[in-house]
Amino acid sequence: MAYEPRHMKWWGWGDEEAGFDAHAHPGFWPYAKTALEIEEEPPAAHKWTVEDVELPEASVDERFLIKLRAFLNPTQITRDRKDRVVHAYGKGFRDLFRLRRGLAAGAPDLVVYPESENDVCLTLRAAAERDVVVIPFGGGSNISGCLERMESKRMVVSLDMRRMRRVLEVDVQSCTAQIEAGVFGPDLEEQLNGYGLTLGHFPDSFLHSTLGGWIATRSAGMQSDRYGKIEDMVIAVRMVTPEGILATRVVPKSSNGIDVNHVCIGSEGTLGVITEATMRVHPRPESRLVPAFLFPEFDAGVEAIHECVRQECAPAMVRLNDPDKTALSMAFRPPASRVSRALNRMFKCYLRVKGFTLPRACLMLTAFEGRQSDVNRQLRQVEAIYRRFGALGLGATAGESFEASKYDFPHIRDFLLDRNVTTDVSETSTVWRNIVPLYRDTMAMLRESIQESGVRPWTGCHISHTYQCGASVYFTFGFRQQPGGEMEQYVRVKRAVQQSFIDCGATLSHHHAVGTEHLPWLAADISPLGVRVVAAIKRGVDPGNIMNPGRLQPATNAMEEWMRSGGRASEGSLFWPDAKGISSGRAS
Amino acid sequence: MAYEPRHMKWWGWGDEEAGFDAHAHPGFWPYAKTALEIEEEPPAAHKWTVEDVELPEASVDERFLIKLRAFLNPTQITRDRKDRVVHAYGKGFRDLFRLRRGLAAGAPDLVVYPESENDVCLTLRAAAERDVVVIPFGGGSNISGCLERMESKRMVVSLDMRRMRRVLEVDVQSCTAQIEAGVFGPDLEEQLNGYGLTLGHFPDSFLHSTLGGWIATRSAGMQSDRYGKIEDMVIAVRMVTPEGILATRVVPKSSNGIDVNHVCIGSEGTLGVITEATMRVHPRPESRLVPAFLFPEFDAGVEAIHECVRQECAPAMVRLNDPDKTALSMAFRPPASRVSRALNRMFKCYLRVKGFTLPRACLMLTAFEGRQSDVNRQLRQVEAIYRRFGALGLGATAGESFEASKYDFPHIRDFLLDRNVTTDVSETSTVWRNIVPLYRDTMAMLRESIQESGVRPWTGCHISHTYQCGASVYFTFGFRQQPGGEMEQYVRVKRAVQQSFIDCGATLSHHHAVGTEHLPWLAADISPLGVRVVAAIKRGVDPGNIMNPGRLQPATNAMEEWMRSGGRASEGSLFWPDAKGISSGRAS
Repeated sequence: MAYEPRHMKWWGWGDEEAGFDAHAHPGFWPYAKTALEIEEEPPAAHKWTVEDVELPEASVDERFLIKLRAFLNPTQITRDRKDRVVHAYGKGFRDLFRLRRGLAAGAPDLVVYPESENDVCLTLRAAAERDVVVIPFGGGSNISGCLERMESKRMVVSLDMRRMRRVLEVDVQSCTAQIEAGVFGPDLEEQLNGYGLTLGHFPDSFLHSTLGGWIATRSAGMQSDRYGKIEDMVIAVRMVTPEGILATRVVPKSSNGIDVNHVCIGSEGTLGVITEATMRVHPRPESRLVPAFLFPEFDAGVEAIHECVRQECAPAMVRLNDPDKTALSMAFRPPASRVSRALNRMFKCYLRVKGFTLPRACLMLTAFEGRQSDVNRQLRQVEAIYRRFGALGLGATAGESFEASKYDFPHIRDFLLDRNVTTDVSETSTVWRNIVPLYRDTMAMLRESIQESGVRPWTGCHISHTYQCGASVYFTFGFRQQPGGEMEQYVRVKRAVQQSFIDCGATLSHHHAVGTEHLPWLAADISPLGVRVVAAIKRGVDPGNIMNPGRLQPATNAMEEWMRSGGRASEGSLFWPDAKGISSGRAS
Repeated sequence: MAYEPRHMKWWGWGDEEAGFDAHAHPGFWPYAKTALEIEEEPPAAHKWTVEDVELPEASVDERFLIKLRAFLNPTQITRDRKDRVVHAYGKGFRDLFRLRRGLAAGAPDLVVYPESENDVCLTLRAAAERDVVVIPFGGGSNISGCLERMESKRMVVSLDMRRMRRVLEVDVQSCTAQIEAGVFGPDLEEQLNGYGLTLGHFPDSFLHSTLGGWIATRSAGMQSDRYGKIEDMVIAVRMVTPEGILATRVVPKSSNGIDVNHVCIGSEGTLGVITEATMRVHPRPESRLVPAFLFPEFDAGVEAIHECVRQECAPAMVRLNDPDKTALSMAFRPPASRVSRALNRMFKCYLRVKGFTLPRACLMLTAFEGRQSDVNRQLRQVEAIYRRFGALGLGATAGESFEASKYDFPHIRDFLLDRNVTTDVSETSTVWRNIVPLYRDTMAMLRESIQESGVRPWTGCHISHTYQCGASVYFTFGFRQQPGGEMEQYVRVKRAVQQSFIDCGATLSHHHAVGTEHLPWLAADISPLGVRVVAAIKRGVDPGNIMNPGRLQPATNAMEEWMRSGGRASEGSLFWPDAKGISSGRAS
């Protein structure tokens, strides 16, 4: 069989042999112990065995299986225990916490590996005929709860797309590439690099996520400031639904009514299976630079980023860490030699002389890429702006260390889970005017919600993904677990952050999808009628509700109820009297 | 009452007193006579009187009217003859041809002018209760047949949005503005300019079209290369539907499932009424330059534009005319002084010396705007690229004359209609690789279809609205009318162009909407399932089908039939066996 990317370890992030190397980052564990007030020492290494997982009996419809066997080969269909466990969940805190306790109620009954669009069509048809649920599965890296089964009555199939990994056609002249949706990041880049091209999409999950997953969740890569979010890159798409194939044309822009590309983008597996997309691609950049800077405080860094946007010289990537995230980054550095430790001490003195108050200083990573002359010009412009806001250049070293370990961060979570520490992230986007207020309000809510369980909060934030009107605000948090109440503790904190986003006029997520984690805020975000529009689309292409059911459809329909009754109340209060409040919040 | 923009003349484009001034463009009529082989001289001026129009009896549901009167004031409701005629059609060839013959079967029974979102809500609710059709009306400038009534049984209301014209709130820091949808271009710019801002959206129809119309049709402004198409500028939207209000949040980007902004954008009045939008706005540019260039031939011009895109220095606007459109532009110039005529002769000699073959030369208008230093740098880069492709700089004069008369072009159509000449436009977009082949194929189809009626074709084309992957290709055509067969003659030509777009793998329109003119190609463009998705959305928010019925829903459902039967044919041919061909055509 052709090359096929491996599955991640089922109990954590990354390849089975990969993980957080405490020796390579000697400062991290001491930092974490202090920050989180951890007293215990690390436990002995745990050996995870899939046999220990409590797996529900696979309930397989034999007539469905017979249909599948008519067009799929034996390697494409499996009920293997490990396969089922791997496909049970994504990689959110709840997912990993349950798996590590040996709980895999989210596991599908069967896993199918299509090798062509026709395989997908026929599988969906068989599923529709036998009322079997289908959950499309890309890399399984989602952290918002997009992948577990939400019902136990019907049989559930996980449709793993990894064998559909070919770049089908490249139009070098027009910079478009037609690509099968199951391809993983590194494989895709390798194929495109062969044409001198890149997609330019490098999310934190790059190593373990797929094109189809990116499109289905509205993903953003680290360099989205230059290349756009995934939705900006989709030229055309093919999506197989239970009612047929939705296919759009390879044209740069159109005025052909409602843009149905945007019905596929963000559909989170609820409408069908994205089998391929024609994507906007780019010549590989001639040059790439990742300098780092230190800002005297957070607000100054935000202002500096905004000024770059205003002056139309925004770098390909900016990542402004708040003071706590800066401290974490520092603790995450590779071991220092004696010389560099000495230099470090000197540098700290120098910073104090320059007026920096270390606990308030903020690390800003910045990446430039493109043609050499453009990169040079941009760097000069950006440095001049940063300096106006008090920044100090740190050179390329911090940037290089970021580059070297940019995909390793998720391993920390596993390392801390082993030590009874819960960590997670929540991110949003908002307009420039609202970034600092949202940061402060959410941080307060976040710390308060953690402290409620009597533990010390660790919280950090970074700003990235800039747009003309605003940017993404990304929170990271961690705390010691309350034995026996881990899940409730997590839910309380997560809920506080998400509620703060909505209360502050921001969105439920900038690039992590709705899933189950963010579903309670969907109606507040896109309005109850927006939710009904999504439901109407779903009924149109999936009348049997077999595609990833339960997602994008809030279960508690208080809003719906409101609309049913509220519309009739009085002439003046038709629809929602408070719609303005819901729609725009403080930020509008 | 507050300021309210006037209606365009019902029998043509623009204000009643405006029109094509033949004395100001003395070269035009001689050029047109030769190009189109016109022998007659201009007719005596026609005086259009609204009393001569054959208007169907207004069929008004009195109970509906009583409901309206409960919340609207008398100036907001009218059955006035002229109001009905003005709202009967947009400004397409078919529209004007019929009106000029005194036919106004498309006229609504009533015109309503809402002054608030609540007026819109209550009107839609009354309409839903009384089964009255509502057609949202912005400036009435659409040329694709979006505005006429498509049925005669139910009462029809034209909902004219022009009184909802306020910029409600501006966030200068974040560059967003919350704007009522009925505002016209100049009024909007005046309000934004007061804050030092601009929307940057200047379609050819700018003087006579509205924000809501732009969003509902996926409009593109002349400077879309810099500011994006209208869909790129929408941050949030409010749309009133018969089932409630769809309202989204003021956030730069999100990952909140299917992006319901894109359900409102391009909905062409079929789902509801866009009442307001929060738009991305920009500081007014410090500097603006519109130099013109002459390219030795069309292909070289296309290559030069593409190279600017590749080198990331694309101007705010490019408009490359093909040789015939260049000749038309030359004929459209203001009268020349004796000196400039002499200079002109010298210039022609110079061009010949430089190796230009005049009948093949192509005029390229280019606009730069932004900060002075960026404009200067871009101009240098672009000039260097243009020169490599053989271009000759013509300085700012041609550009200035374009600037002065950029909104006057539609007047020519009225002038020629008076002289029994049909003119129209059709435009599309395609990927770079396909631009010249599409240009040649479509031009051949176009000329052939005109010649079929034994008249001499005039055809021209320009390229504009560039993207990384391609650009818009815009065809203009004219021909003498076949007396008695004008409509059939027009339809044959229009159909040939549109069919060529689809055959060449392009889209039915880049920025003129679907309407009735392009509806037969919708299923080929967005796939039959795409059409069904649009229908599903419609059922969800407008179950009574009262919003602009008939649009975005192809009447001849051959495709639907195919899908109903085709899916069951054989295991292998599920859905559409020829889907690849339909979806991508030659260009993929």
